[in-house]
Amino acid sequence: MDKEISQAVIRRMPRYYRYLGELLDAGVDRISSNELSSRMKVTASQIRQDLNNFGGFGQQGYGYNVKYLYDEIGKILGLDHQHNIIVVGAGNLGQALANYVKFEKRGFMITGLFDVNPALKGVSVRGIEVRMMEELPEFVQENRVDIAALTMPKEQAEAVAKQLVELGIDAIWNFAHLDLELPEHVVVENVHLSDSLMQLSYNIVKKENDTEKK
Amino acid sequence: MDKEISQAVIRRMPRYYRYLGELLDAGVDRISSNELSSRMKVTASQIRQDLNNFGGFGQQGYGYNVKYLYDEIGKILGLDHQHNIIVVGAGNLGQALANYVKFEKRGFMITGLFDVNPALKGVSVRGIEVRMMEELPEFVQENRVDIAALTMPKEQAEAVAKQLVELGIDAIWNFAHLDLELPEHVVVENVHLSDSLMQLSYNIVKKENDTEKK
Repeated sequence: MDKEISQAVIRRMPRYYRYLGELLDAGVDRISSNELSSRMKVTASQIRQDLNNFGGFGQQGYGYNVKYLYDEIGKILGLDHQHNIIVVGAGNLGQALANYVKFEKRGFMITGLFDVNPALKGVSVRGIEVRMMEELPEFVQENRVDIAALTMPKEQAEAVAKQLVELGIDAIWNFAHLDLELPEHVVVENVHLSDSLMQLSYNIVKKENDTEKK
Repeated sequence: MDKEISQAVIRRMPRYYRYLGELLDAGVDRISSNELSSRMKVTASQIRQDLNNFGGFGQQGYGYNVKYLYDEIGKILGLDHQHNIIVVGAGNLGQALANYVKFEKRGFMITGLFDVNPALKGVSVRGIEVRMMEELPEFVQENRVDIAALTMPKEQAEAVAKQLVELGIDAIWNFAHLDLELPEHVVVENVHLSDSLMQLSYNIVKKENDTEKK
């Protein structure tokens, strides 16, 4: 895998993984690219192209072996490793993340919850105790942490992100409503809920305009 | 605006809006496309191209008037209207959404919170009372609802989405971990947190591989 694979392709891979997982659960062993295509509402040629980025996994006249393809995409997505996640910001959103049992099925284990609010000290979410921010450095020294999720207000996010990077964490799942300025070796994935809402709103206005024109 | 604008462009617009808002807050009146470019880490030509989709807003030698551009992008994104949102699923995630005061600043008002759990009946989140699902049809008849956010488990999401559409709601902000099958006139925006986490994980693995090669 030497060439650079576009983030657009990467964005589609979890969706393939999700659909293949559902097929597996439904007891489907193999599927043609046409069937997969009609289920996923992606053209068969797009599917072939996407998978060819990773060497392709289909066989002419046979289609795809669901279990094999599911496992291979899982490896591509790094789901054959366990990832330990700490959640920094134990408000509603942080607690929502800690409550997602499905993350664990994919190997994403939430191992710590941190906050600055003393009222949350000792509160436990699905067995994970909320710790105070002062305890963060020691926690990171003593426990492997692969990913930090930032679920605190925007105002504190930049400083906390820098602290996390100094502590050696180099993957950030950012829910704070800003683009973090971090060293290049740090991998950041943003979930900007307001941006998503604005895209929705754009598409609502657009649909209204399109309808008026008709 | 007759031509189709790609979703990739639309995805960047909220980010422009966010940066311009910060510039406004900082008292900046005008900005060159080069300055905007270096702040946003997008090439100046990309910015010009994106904005040209909507007619372009810059003036040679002057750059952009920040307030004007902010307002115009706001209109493009439909932020000059108020949008009433109901949140269906009043667990942690639903409550987190109801607690985001920033949505209101953009005209997104959360006007209702619904759940099936009787333990939540009457609980109030930032002044918004949790109602039971049985009350939904009446609520939608009596109140304008522009968007429904789905924050309940995947298993119920498809049926609830269909119910919402039958009640006349035609914009869904979907947090449930599946792709909804809805009539074409319905606008859907997905926030798939697991997909986002898998993208992060892909980029972590990729970085490790790239580092090993060096």
